[in-house]
Formats: sequence, structure tokens, C-alpha cells
Amino acid sequence: MSEFHCNATVNQISVDLRLTQIECRKRGLIETATWLAEMRYALDLTGIASTSGEEKVPDAVKCCYIDGISENERDEYNLARGYFDLREYDRAAHCVRNAESPVAKFLHLYSLYKAKEKRRIDNLTDRGNLVESGQYIDLADLKDTLYKLHAKRKLDGYCLYLYGLVLKKLDVEELAEEVLIESINAVPTLWCSYAELAPLLNETSKIYSIKLPDHWMRGVFFAFAHVELLDSDTAITLLTQLQKTFVKSTFLVAQIGKALHYKRSKSDCNWPSVVRVFDAIVLF
Amino acid sequence: MSEFHCNATVNQISVDLRLTQIECRKRGLIETATWLAEMRYALDLTGIASTSGEEKVPDAVKCCYIDGISENERDEYNLARGYFDLREYDRAAHCVRNAESPVAKFLHLYSLYKAKEKRRIDNLTDRGNLVESGQYIDLADLKDTLYKLHAKRKLDGYCLYLYGLVLKKLDVEELAEEVLIESINAVPTLWCSYAELAPLLNETSKIYSIKLPDHWMRGVFFAFAHVELLDSDTAITLLTQLQKTFVKSTFLVAQIGKALHYKRSKSDCNWPSVVRVFDAIVLF
Repeated sequence: MSEFHCNATVNQISVDLRLTQIECRKRGLIETATWLAEMRYALDLTGIASTSGEEKVPDAVKCCYIDGISENERDEYNLARGYFDLREYDRAAHCVRNAESPVAKFLHLYSLYKAKEKRRIDNLTDRGNLVESGQYIDLADLKDTLYKLHAKRKLDGYCLYLYGLVLKKLDVEELAEEVLIESINAVPTLWCSYAELAPLLNETSKIYSIKLPDHWMRGVFFAFAHVELLDSDTAITLLTQLQKTFVKSTFLVAQIGKALHYKRSKSDCNWPSVVRVFDAIVLF
Repeated sequence: MSEFHCNATVNQISVDLRLTQIECRKRGLIETATWLAEMRYALDLTGIASTSGEEKVPDAVKCCYIDGISENERDEYNLARGYFDLREYDRAAHCVRNAESPVAKFLHLYSLYKAKEKRRIDNLTDRGNLVESGQYIDLADLKDTLYKLHAKRKLDGYCLYLYGLVLKKLDVEELAEEVLIESINAVPTLWCSYAELAPLLNETSKIYSIKLPDHWMRGVFFAFAHVELLDSDTAITLLTQLQKTFVKSTFLVAQIGKALHYKRSKSDCNWPSVVRVFDAIVLF
């Protein structure tokens, strides 16, 4: 069992979270951006002087909003991002079909994925089982595109996440694991890659054997993976440690709740703790 | 009939559209942001040198992404914006309930509005008629809040749009018209205010008598208002003029289509009401 790796200062964690959050929002990774915003909100920043002042925004943050979108592709990108927000994924993908800059290119591929997912879910409304095999067959084209780009080493961390996600949906689990780890090594704060990776690991020993970057985010992943692999006691210890840094995190409280819930099947279940945790969630 | 007021250069129009689009996206006005992106995409920018180069972004555009959100409210704002994207409007409104900076404050009020609208639509699924009176009664609280802020002159152009929208839904049409005009005078490129205003005008002569700012956007409004008021011939002339500037605009093509459709329907019966009814049907 590893301790929460916190060589990083709260300030560094805070900057990491903010920058990645902007990157994710630009790319339409809304759930991840919200998770990152939640984690940043959960930090105890009272000791940090810079946040008490007004408008002390690092230049890195200012530039981050436009980095990765070349000026001559910005109109197409903005239009595509608008369509994406309006859930018109096919139109969004079409707008940036020729894009070369990394953000616009990711938006094209991700819009294609979202369009296919939207159609899949629309077509399944009358069926009871959303997890039946064969329903992801529509993703095969996208997998081929990503496979070719991957072979040419043209996928950045975000695109690698998408490739991993597509592979996972198509049940190519071993390769999905490799690609997601590659994605994490490229962008160590990309939570969605960790979240997709955790359920792929079969046993807790594997959590520590995979090659992850030496980054504070690893600590959050370790805790999350232990919850996913039903190792509740270790998970709760790790999550409680994390709560010292992310003091207001509803995510961590929910994970503790989940860990205690998994423990319930065991005879030595501590019901009062479960109730207290769910009470705490309600309070937020 | 007024000509398309185009003292503004294509470059100025382009900068106006881009800046307002960023402002709208920050505030969650997604449809307006997309409309503005469409109009910017529609411009013929081939003659403008600055777009051919890479990364020549004006400082105004760089700052625009963070203007109006004070540093100490940024975490709450980012979290709220995430929830807003995920359509969790009540949570979004709650996150920025104490915000003072203009963008975060608008997001609070607009999230309240969206939450109420979402509930209204959810509750109406079993009923046939979405336009029955009395269903907007839930907006009365929000109207009161906005009324008090308006009396203290604490509403900016974006909040004025929201106030106008709420008044319109509550059938306080005369005041809605005044407030929307006030909003347009505060932010002359805010398309949603024009779009809400046009159907409130009863006759074409009124289009030119209301006090609008001397801005290129007025030309687009004139054309749009003529379509709304079923004055198809003038509308088509104005729209065709606009097409010289916004060469690739699908919005203008759609408006011309609408104007031609209304023209076809004209005869000695009360066609305007019939058309409005058909419009309502199409909306379903």
C-alpha cells in the first residue's frame, strides 16, 4: 500500500487542476472538467496568499484558453464547439474535419464518438439491456482511424484517452489498458483516463505494477482503484488521507460511501459509518 | 426602409462577433454564442491579413476569457459552469449564489431561470399545449429579484436580457420591450436580445422608431424583424444585402426561406395568425 504521494504543494495541485480543467473544457470533456473543478474547489487554499488578491492570474492560465487552436482554424473550432454544446455532434465533427491543431483535431474525433454514442442510445430506447455485446460495432470505423494515427504516433494524451475508451467499448481490454496508461503518462492530470483504467485492473497488486508517472494524481487513482476492486479497507484509509488535502471534496466522501457499501456484504459491516457518510453527502 | 448600416469594416465585425461570443459562452448563453460563431464563420475574411498568420490574437481576446470573473470567485464559477454544462442548473445556481463579479452573477441568475424552465418542461410532458397561460407563474420570484436589481441599476446588458426574457414569458410585454432595448444599448452585439425583441413589435414602422444603438448589428435586426412581421419583400431585400457581408451564412439563407414561405401564404384570410399557428406546430 502506498501513501498519498504529496510532494506537490497545494499551490501546484491547484494550478495543475485549473490548467487541465481549461484544456478539458476546450475539448468538450465536460464531466472531467467538472470533476477537476470540484477537486480544485475542495482544496483548502486559505494559506495561499495569491488567491486573496484580485486578478492575479498566471500568464500560463491566460494563454491556456487559446493554446492548441491555431488562429486560422479558430472560427471552425468555435462553431464546432457551439454545435457540440448544443449536442449536434455530427455537425460539430464536420466543422473541424480538416483541422490540424491538437484541440480542434481532438474535438473532431470526440464529436464523431459522441455522435455514434448518441445514435446508439437513441436506437436502444426500446431494449432493456444497454450492455449487450455487439452494440458498439458502430465504433469500429473510429477505432481504425485512431489505430492508424496511433501507429504514426500522432495521438496526444487526450486522443489517446479517446482511443483507450473506444478500445474498451469494443472489448479490446488489454490494448485499452496500454493505451490509457500511455495517455496518463502524456497528461498526468487527465482524470477520465484514470477512471476508465481502474475497472480494467483485475487485482489490487496490479495497481502498483503498472507504469504511472510520478505525480500527485497517482494518489487519487490508487484510492479510486481500491474502491473499484472492492478492497474497501485500504480504499477507506487512502481516501481519508486524501481528505486532508481535498478537504471539501464530495467525490471523496462519495467514494468512502461506496467503499463502505461494498463492505456491507461482509458480516462485519459497520452500519453506523455507512449512515454517517450518506448523511454527510446529503449535507453537501 | 433602411440600408444595411455597414460603416464597420469586416475586421471590426469579426472582432465584435468573437468577443461577444466568448462573453456569451462564459455566461452559458450557448445558442447565442453559436449564432455569433456562425455569423463570424460566414464572413469573407480573405482580404484580411491578420487571419492568415498564426497566433496573432489581440490581447483583448486573450483577456476576454477571464474578464468579469474575480480571482476569488473563479473556483465557484468554474464549478458552476461545469454543472451548467451538465444541465444541473440548481447546483450551478447554488455554487455562485454569493457571487459579486458580473459573469458569475449572471450565471447564478441564468441558472435559476434554466432550472425553472427545465422543471416546467418536465412537468408538461403529458399536456398537449405548451403555450397555455399560467405555466410561467414559477418565474415570478425571479422577476421580483431582477425587478429590485433593475431599480438599483445593478443589471448589466446580459442581466437586462434575462430580465426582458422573464418579463416576456410573464406577458408583461411593454416593459419587456423597454428592458430588451436597454439591454441592446448596453451590449449592441447581444443577438438574443434582438431575437426576443423582434416578435414584440406590432408593426413594421415601429422597427425604425425604437431607440437602438448606431451599430452594424442593427442591420441584421432590421432584416430579421421584417421577416418576423411578415413583411417579406423588404425582408428579402435586406437579407440579400446582408449576404454580401456574411457570404456563407446559413442563418440568412434560412431567413430568406422563411420570408418566401410567408409570402406564399399571403391571401385575404388572416394569414399571419395561421402562420404563427403552423410555426408553433413545427416547434413540436
